[in-house]
Amino acid sequence: MPKLRVAVLGATGAVGQELVRLLDSHPWFSLAVLVASDRSVGRRYGEVVDWRSPGFPPRAASGLLIEPLGRQPEVDLVLSALDSAVAGPAELELARAGYPVVSNSSVHRMDPDVPLVIPEVNASHLDALRAAPGAGGGFIVTNPNCSTIGLVLALKPLWDRFGVSQVQVATMQAISGAGLDGVSAGMISDNVLPHIPGEEEKLETEPRKILGRWEGAFLPAALAVSAACHRVAVLDGHLEAVSVKLMSSATADEVVDAFESFRASPEVAALPSSPPFPVQLHRRPDRPQPRLDRGAGRGMTVSVGRVRECSVLDWKFTALSHNLVRGAAGAALLNAELLVARGEVRPSFGAGVGG
Amino acid sequence: MPKLRVAVLGATGAVGQELVRLLDSHPWFSLAVLVASDRSVGRRYGEVVDWRSPGFPPRAASGLLIEPLGRQPEVDLVLSALDSAVAGPAELELARAGYPVVSNSSVHRMDPDVPLVIPEVNASHLDALRAAPGAGGGFIVTNPNCSTIGLVLALKPLWDRFGVSQVQVATMQAISGAGLDGVSAGMISDNVLPHIPGEEEKLETEPRKILGRWEGAFLPAALAVSAACHRVAVLDGHLEAVSVKLMSSATADEVVDAFESFRASPEVAALPSSPPFPVQLHRRPDRPQPRLDRGAGRGMTVSVGRVRECSVLDWKFTALSHNLVRGAAGAALLNAELLVARGEVRPSFGAGVGG
Amino acid sequence: MPKLRVAVLGATGAVGQELVRLLDSHPWFSLAVLVASDRSVGRRYGEVVDWRSPGFPPRAASGLLIEPLGRQPEVDLVLSALDSAVAGPAELELARAGYPVVSNSSVHRMDPDVPLVIPEVNASHLDALRAAPGAGGGFIVTNPNCSTIGLVLALKPLWDRFGVSQVQVATMQAISGAGLDGVSAGMISDNVLPHIPGEEEKLETEPRKILGRWEGAFLPAALAVSAACHRVAVLDGHLEAVSVKLMSSATADEVVDAFESFRASPEVAALPSSPPFPVQLHRRPDRPQPRLDRGAGRGMTVSVGRVRECSVLDWKFTALSHNLVRGAAGAALLNAELLVARGEVRPSFGAGVGG
Amino acid sequence: MPKLRVAVLGATGAVGQELVRLLDSHPWFSLAVLVASDRSVGRRYGEVVDWRSPGFPPRAASGLLIEPLGRQPEVDLVLSALDSAVAGPAELELARAGYPVVSNSSVHRMDPDVPLVIPEVNASHLDALRAAPGAGGGFIVTNPNCSTIGLVLALKPLWDRFGVSQVQVATMQAISGAGLDGVSAGMISDNVLPHIPGEEEKLETEPRKILGRWEGAFLPAALAVSAACHRVAVLDGHLEAVSVKLMSSATADEVVDAFESFRASPEVAALPSSPPFPVQLHRRPDRPQPRLDRGAGRGMTVSVGRVRECSVLDWKFTALSHNLVRGAAGAALLNAELLVARGEVRPSFGAGVGG
Repeated sequence: MPKLRVAVLGATGAVGQELVRLLDSHPWFSLAVLVASDRSVGRRYGEVVDWRSPGFPPRAASGLLIEPLGRQPEVDLVLSALDSAVAGPAELELARAGYPVVSNSSVHRMDPDVPLVIPEVNASHLDALRAAPGAGGGFIVTNPNCSTIGLVLALKPLWDRFGVSQVQVATMQAISGAGLDGVSAGMISDNVLPHIPGEEEKLETEPRKILGRWEGAFLPAALAVSAACHRVAVLDGHLEAVSVKLMSSATADEVVDAFESFRASPEVAALPSSPPFPVQLHRRPDRPQPRLDRGAGRGMTVSVGRVRECSVLDWKFTALSHNLVRGAAGAALLNAELLVARGEVRPSFGAGVGG
Repeated sequence: MPKLRVAVLGATGAVGQELVRLLDSHPWFSLAVLVASDRSVGRRYGEVVDWRSPGFPPRAASGLLIEPLGRQPEVDLVLSALDSAVAGPAELELARAGYPVVSNSSVHRMDPDVPLVIPEVNASHLDALRAAPGAGGGFIVTNPNCSTIGLVLALKPLWDRFGVSQVQVATMQAISGAGLDGVSAGMISDNVLPHIPGEEEKLETEPRKILGRWEGAFLPAALAVSAACHRVAVLDGHLEAVSVKLMSSATADEVVDAFESFRASPEVAALPSSPPFPVQLHRRPDRPQPRLDRGAGRGMTVSVGRVRECSVLDWKFTALSHNLVRGAAGAALLNAELLVARGEVRPSFGAGVGG
Repeated sequence: MPKLRVAVLGATGAVGQELVRLLDSHPWFSLAVLVASDRSVGRRYGEVVDWRSPGFPPRAASGLLIEPLGRQPEVDLVLSALDSAVAGPAELELARAGYPVVSNSSVHRMDPDVPLVIPEVNASHLDALRAAPGAGGGFIVTNPNCSTIGLVLALKPLWDRFGVSQVQVATMQAISGAGLDGVSAGMISDNVLPHIPGEEEKLETEPRKILGRWEGAFLPAALAVSAACHRVAVLDGHLEAVSVKLMSSATADEVVDAFESFRASPEVAALPSSPPFPVQLHRRPDRPQPRLDRGAGRGMTVSVGRVRECSVLDWKFTALSHNLVRGAAGAALLNAELLVARGEVRPSFGAGVGG
Repeated sequence: MPKLRVAVLGATGAVGQELVRLLDSHPWFSLAVLVASDRSVGRRYGEVVDWRSPGFPPRAASGLLIEPLGRQPEVDLVLSALDSAVAGPAELELARAGYPVVSNSSVHRMDPDVPLVIPEVNASHLDALRAAPGAGGGFIVTNPNCSTIGLVLALKPLWDRFGVSQVQVATMQAISGAGLDGVSAGMISDNVLPHIPGEEEKLETEPRKILGRWEGAFLPAALAVSAACHRVAVLDGHLEAVSVKLMSSATADEVVDAFESFRASPEVAALPSSPPFPVQLHRRPDRPQPRLDRGAGRGMTVSVGRVRECSVLDWKFTALSHNLVRGAAGAALLNAELLVARGEVRPSFGAGVGG
């Protein structure tokens, strides 16, 4: 099978760099087009990118010339890591021009016709694409906010087994979640920032759409989430302290078993970016830790630990996810892979549009 | 008034150093005796202490010779910053020998005859000393755990005005709370530790004693606290994300007003270490922050911010307190001052005992 | 004596904030005018400044309305913490309009008619002001780069006693030296940056002017400086590892004595911002350390330690200075005080110009 | 070829853990015996080790029971990561019992009959083993201190091409160089430590032995090294600012070319742990950086950058090496591989001794 040609929008940002890194040796996708801001256009990616991962940008990507937003790239698939400020109209335009747009941006997540998907949680929401195809044949599929994904993946085993009605969550989020230079050292050194604008709203809203049902419309789940979001001096990896109220009673063993026996569906488990375990349970009380566990499943596994009773709700636990991989670039990539597996993205498509 | 002679037990540790610093220019107390571990005994404090505050140890303290535990020091008052491992019998012995022992150690906090006191919250618990004087005339008075003090002081205005039935709290605690070298850089750099042994138990238990009543016995308050405690890469200052369920309904304005109008009693406000405001409310959403606000009220003020509704309980807010000052050394000192003001510690006492 | 009215240019930046802090309770100066970038003009300082010191901006400063650059403020003295990009013409214009401009900017430091002054080192360079008064009666006096000041103050005792011909210096500079948000957490966490653009050039050039003589022109000293500048994860305080070649031989005792006996001239020692000791020698091998010693002399003392032989040059030592105080805001302030003491800045002046 | 059985002494420390990690999938060596301190003896490695790398200890190692020091293990080769305090007699005893001991400890490095080897620099020093075989048939081979290896590997291309007579070096060393918990967060946060006991002495002495010749005895090179060693808040990777005086003149292009064309000998290049390039030259002025470049060549490449003229000596540059890999565990492993390639370690050997 020839690889599908992929464009990455916002390729020089924190999430864009991660997409470039993950696409470097991807079995299905070939990185064909890199789009970034105007001042980079026409220059080689390797020259303009302020690469923050160890080593250097992949050789193939380094040689690509940056293209401007606004063109119709010769690709089969668009992966968007655009800032919300510009993602809104740009992604819509591409979808209307027939492109499948898989986006990490927040701007269209809550749109009534846009699926907000975590493959292990609500792959069925992609049915909306067939039910309500957009004009032009393209579409937008989004993944949740970086702090939402870790929470919802950790909730999913409990949701399926016992039902969940209330969630209290306090996050300790990594600086890379704010973008490449979004947090200055002068702000975060020897410090914690007690507020991330807009973050608590996303974390309280998105889970209801994801855990809800598609029945011609996206019906939100009956779930109350209360969030307190903090920025801490960690490079990558969002840690979340979670308390839950269950719909049916559970013993400690049952809760632990729910986490340990949770698996992706066979369809999702077969995707190239799917980790061996979407959720991994830790039994040592000092785990998960961001630096030690964010790389689990090459960044795609959510680590859960410290399962214990809560004296206010029912159960407490700690969840950790790599905000740039499972929480952003890897999330978009997994969505893209699922769309390919379901036949929603096809090689002929891109050829027809772009050429 | 001649100053009261004071001994500091555990003087080389993190809390001990802070006591030495705070006592340096104290209007009522004179640092007379420093007690530390055996390997330091007989050497000068300035030579053995690994001083971690800016600059150098106070000149007067530096010249004192370290004394061993087990002697009866010639002092009117004992301030204990001993490790729990050794504090148990040592503090009891001194109390039985007639000394007033004001301790930061956890070991006796929940003893049925030992007051656990925050002067602005439950000064009345000191009545227990008169009701049940110990053999020998001495006694032990304790202050709560560093994470408990910030929480309970922040809860107190709501407790008094509305009543509080449930508390959900996630802490982000500074490394100095683990003692001088309790957290290695290799553990906490680029990381968060999701477990502090014993901490959640203290934070869930101590508030019930403090907010309870003394009626011949300490009757715990009817309050459920659920805690998740974390260590973060901050030098000093514990930040806590708190959600509360109130006994009576409140508007946002009323909650804010409760915080803003809270004052210490005149008796407590007059103590030398009492801050102008025990609780300070922030209105900027990005405050309080550990590095910017831990020094408020010379470390004795608890900073509260981000008051907002909670979709699971009733109200959420963020509280910050300096763990070494308000949460430990300053807490003990304020307790000692209150005991002096109430006549529980007297100069003649020490003379009689020690000499 | 009524206080002199002072304007601070660039008042919202890292150095500007420090000037505002230091001026808050200054015995000679009254903060009258705050100038910042266009987007802040007309708003209150307290609203626009992203204050990074503990607590809050001084109350008096908070209420001042930000004024634009380009006006002639009603002040006796201008303190400039402008970015070099805008400082060039703006400072010249004010000097030509008759203002004494005391600047921390790098742009005019090496100008042939502008003194580059550290009061304890080369106060005599101010003679240039009398010898060559500018048109309009104003002038510019500059202080050196933050890394230069610590080096030159530490060299001065050796320069005076033995002569110095060669200096090898490696710096470990704090993030605040790059401005408020000049270093992102993603760049410096778990890292060292091996290059600070332009810094090595300043550190190799400025000492020659400062240690040179004014003889109708500034004659540079015959001194070779080789610098390697690094950014490290420290909030404030530049540490420098220095090796020197002396002009005449010296014993270890003589070198130590040179540091210990060094004092400011009586004229300089009497200035309000003058520290008790411009240079403080440490004898413990583990000092100076940025966090423990940057505050020495309220940030105005350079701490020197680890004096030992160098197997390539003659002697090695470590120097530390607070980059925002002694290295910037305090340096400018001390220069301004010296100018007042010498009668170069007068109250009538400002009245005449501004009003 | 059956794998050689290997024992790791000091297996739970920072260097020991790295040895265990590197041996996990080694083509020549099989991890057979783990030795650690008495309190761990008899327990499984996976239970006692406080593993600090991402993820978990290798499965095979986790199941091994810790053995005590003092026994003669059934292995062909001993890799020692013991603390110097215990390494001295323990390594000697094993060598006398016939074992090849490849040690990272400092204690025997300067012994007159012990080679101190970096394979790319002075493999010929191993000739000493044949010239002067120890009693019992065993021997000790050491690798240099973690800060020495990076320096000497970076000097080697210049040494070979131009000769080097003087070196001035300032180091910024990672916390892991001090062992697992050798640096507390309270010491290094927002700080630099200006002294590492014993480090400057090693860095000034070891290069002379390594760059010297074996002529029946180890004749030190005529080279003056002056070092200033600092601890910085970096997890792994020692950065060094180096200035050198060459024996013959060189242009910038020639210096750059010396670094770029440097290769290991074919014998060394063929070893499993040999990196593609022992030295990698960076041309971007902001590199090398510890976090981005310590992993080059899987931690075995020394990164060099910022080549520029020195106004005191001749040339300046920055060198970076991974202190736990190239500077310790990987260094020992490469030495062990070289010994196997040269026939100094043989499978029969171990069988004879241990069995």
